[in-house]
Amino acid sequence: MGKRIKLNAVEVACPMQDNPGLWAYPGNEAERYKDMNYWTELAHLLERGRFDAVFIGDMLGVFDVYQQKRDIAIRDALFFPNFDPSFLIPVMANVTKHLNFAITFSITYEHPYTLARKMTSLDHLTNGRVGWNMVASYLNSAARNFGLDEQLGHDERYDRGDEFLEVCYKLWEKSWEDDAVLRDPEKRIYTDPDKVHDIQHEGKYFKVPGIHLSEPSPQRTPVLFQAGTSERGRAFAARHAECIFLNPLSPEESRFVVEDTRGRTAKEGRDPNSVLFFPKLTPIVAETEEEAYAKYRCYLQYTRTEGTLALLSAWTGIDFSTFDQDELLAFIEKSKEGRTYLLDHFEKEKNWSVRKLSKFFAFGGLGALTIGTPQQIADKMEYFVDELGVDGFNIAYITKPQSLKDFIDLVVPELQRRGRVQKEYGEGTFREVLFEQNARLPQHHPGGKHRIQGGVSNG
Amino acid sequence: MGKRIKLNAVEVACPMQDNPGLWAYPGNEAERYKDMNYWTELAHLLERGRFDAVFIGDMLGVFDVYQQKRDIAIRDALFFPNFDPSFLIPVMANVTKHLNFAITFSITYEHPYTLARKMTSLDHLTNGRVGWNMVASYLNSAARNFGLDEQLGHDERYDRGDEFLEVCYKLWEKSWEDDAVLRDPEKRIYTDPDKVHDIQHEGKYFKVPGIHLSEPSPQRTPVLFQAGTSERGRAFAARHAECIFLNPLSPEESRFVVEDTRGRTAKEGRDPNSVLFFPKLTPIVAETEEEAYAKYRCYLQYTRTEGTLALLSAWTGIDFSTFDQDELLAFIEKSKEGRTYLLDHFEKEKNWSVRKLSKFFAFGGLGALTIGTPQQIADKMEYFVDELGVDGFNIAYITKPQSLKDFIDLVVPELQRRGRVQKEYGEGTFREVLFEQNARLPQHHPGGKHRIQGGVSNG
Repeated sequence: MGKRIKLNAVEVACPMQDNPGLWAYPGNEAERYKDMNYWTELAHLLERGRFDAVFIGDMLGVFDVYQQKRDIAIRDALFFPNFDPSFLIPVMANVTKHLNFAITFSITYEHPYTLARKMTSLDHLTNGRVGWNMVASYLNSAARNFGLDEQLGHDERYDRGDEFLEVCYKLWEKSWEDDAVLRDPEKRIYTDPDKVHDIQHEGKYFKVPGIHLSEPSPQRTPVLFQAGTSERGRAFAARHAECIFLNPLSPEESRFVVEDTRGRTAKEGRDPNSVLFFPKLTPIVAETEEEAYAKYRCYLQYTRTEGTLALLSAWTGIDFSTFDQDELLAFIEKSKEGRTYLLDHFEKEKNWSVRKLSKFFAFGGLGALTIGTPQQIADKMEYFVDELGVDGFNIAYITKPQSLKDFIDLVVPELQRRGRVQKEYGEGTFREVLFEQNARLPQHHPGGKHRIQGGVSNG
Repeated sequence: MGKRIKLNAVEVACPMQDNPGLWAYPGNEAERYKDMNYWTELAHLLERGRFDAVFIGDMLGVFDVYQQKRDIAIRDALFFPNFDPSFLIPVMANVTKHLNFAITFSITYEHPYTLARKMTSLDHLTNGRVGWNMVASYLNSAARNFGLDEQLGHDERYDRGDEFLEVCYKLWEKSWEDDAVLRDPEKRIYTDPDKVHDIQHEGKYFKVPGIHLSEPSPQRTPVLFQAGTSERGRAFAARHAECIFLNPLSPEESRFVVEDTRGRTAKEGRDPNSVLFFPKLTPIVAETEEEAYAKYRCYLQYTRTEGTLALLSAWTGIDFSTFDQDELLAFIEKSKEGRTYLLDHFEKEKNWSVRKLSKFFAFGGLGALTIGTPQQIADKMEYFVDELGVDGFNIAYITKPQSLKDFIDLVVPELQRRGRVQKEYGEGTFREVLFEQNARLPQHHPGGKHRIQGGVSNG
């Protein structure tokens, strides 16, 4: 029997994800995104399906590259309107016992002193059930509202990110000794001042001399997630990430990113198997293949070409509205400024038309879309895990919550029969159940190096 | 029958508030501050007691003026350790229906673009049950960790605060027209792009050209709370605040702040009765006066003089460790840099010794401490409301949750018998139940001026 397949659901605090137009599909509960009950019901559903976690994305700007304006993004509800998704974690944690949470915070616009406290807060309140999706924000429409004329360069965002993480590691791992909190009513000491230490960080981007304000939480450092697939993004991931999200356009691409990143991880001195890979999977499932494809064709009628092109424009920086739909992708020059992942791929498909491209991405990328019976979908998932080296999947929906319900009612039991997903939850923090080790960062991780022991930290 | 007395509970996401040493009192559940169940139980308790709201303070630094170090603050658990309290709102909202929430966010260290989104998020998730306590942070120990050598000057913090609020008002009140969200599946329009507007803010401190990312929430602008009592703080409150917290050292002081602030509010062109005042009240109640005082004497044994002086040092900027406990307060010179509220008062009490001062503040200020039978406490509350012009109270605890349980079991029924507090909750958003008007900011409020109507905003 192969390794256990881990399952995350992907969500955002907005009507829909990257399937433009599908909010209008009959029965889609898109507009309930701001209703607390939607989220508690979702949490119950995912726990019933024995999902490991729910991963929640975020976006601090609006897509405005297509037509050089935001109209399509607003009309088609492309990650818009949205709200701050971190408040959903306590809501869902409150009604579940085992479901874990990966929440997105920007390493571009947060400050590490307060970000570290946010994550410690969530780790306390959830009793060790949180991860942090570290995102280097890429939207100029966000940068401008923080008073910047435009965003930092792509590579500089990651340089700053490296230092951001260093500050966080120091706050999480070395500011507090394990036995700092005494709560001794006899001696009248709540916390021993000698066991809480200044981190004395002074770097290029941040100056944080003081202590972490929060006492150590179960995991101290939350499980670290990342989704970057650019060259610099993979270097960042190899250094810091414990879980990596992929949105592969093909199985070969999955294999490449897994192998490349594991190789880089080893060069960073980390155990290459201490990084888990989760490609996105958007299942359309039914009892028979015919039914599944019938569903697919229904969904297709709701897709929106302009919406898809607006997404692709934001992701690539290329305004696709300036090209005819029959034009071929040969026009694409490799961008020097990152997001080369998508552009690299497009360069290989120079004979595609813009129209074909928009169809390919109608549901956020056909590499993720998987149509068929429970058995067919389970087969594909096993293939990805056993042959391509991934560790689980980020399950995305087309309509909510129906897509997830279908997956849980049809595919999960099939995977359980095959012994590939859990029937019952294991006990422990998010890191413990993911890696079957203890709750803390391993010593070979750059954050683990900062860990204080006996009053001494080597970080 | 007089006006309805409104009740808030005061909390912080740390072991204790401003009663140093009391965390060690037998039965005090101080250490449960990081346990989600503590907060859901508290929410249930407060809703049983028909409280209007729970007000949650926050602190982004540690008290380190006393002895020029933080040791006493750490030892005595003075707002330390702490965590980000905003995550408690969704937890408590999820298990209640009517309880409202006032959450503290700093106008010094937040950015208005993201702060506005946070508050809109909470207003959506709670269905209009949130307020924002706008705090100008005053700790150098916080400023340093944001990379500043020291904090902005006191008055400049409020100048920046005025512009901060202006940005928020624009995002909340004028970026979205009321009918911008169509969700029309026929026309395939989720949001009408023509009804979402750039705010084009460009000021001294902030440049925010874009739109609010979140669709309008029930209240749009959350109920605005403030606790400043300095001269500049009262000017800020008179302009922006709808609810003002007081920690009066005497009834006369309450009367002064209420009258002074209402006068300033009128000069700002606002209805002076559109501001509500909530002095802090720390009740010690029992069936008989003897029992109540016996309790008080038990509590007294747990107070910590050094802890109290460490609090006072942080609040005034004066290191009280450099004076003998028998020294008289005559040494206090009026500070030019704000926090004159406490210092003004101390100047009147020049013949007090440091020791006497520390006793006066052992439970966070004797003006708030109220010891007696339910009838005596209700009498005092009625006096404050009917004679001094306040509108309700912020009920603080000495031990938790016992102090609040006592108040709810003994004082609330007495006040209900007198027809002064609600027996059943009214329906509506926080603003609706506080002011018995609609959910939106009134037109005479500086935020109300930005309100967009028919596509036009005058702000």
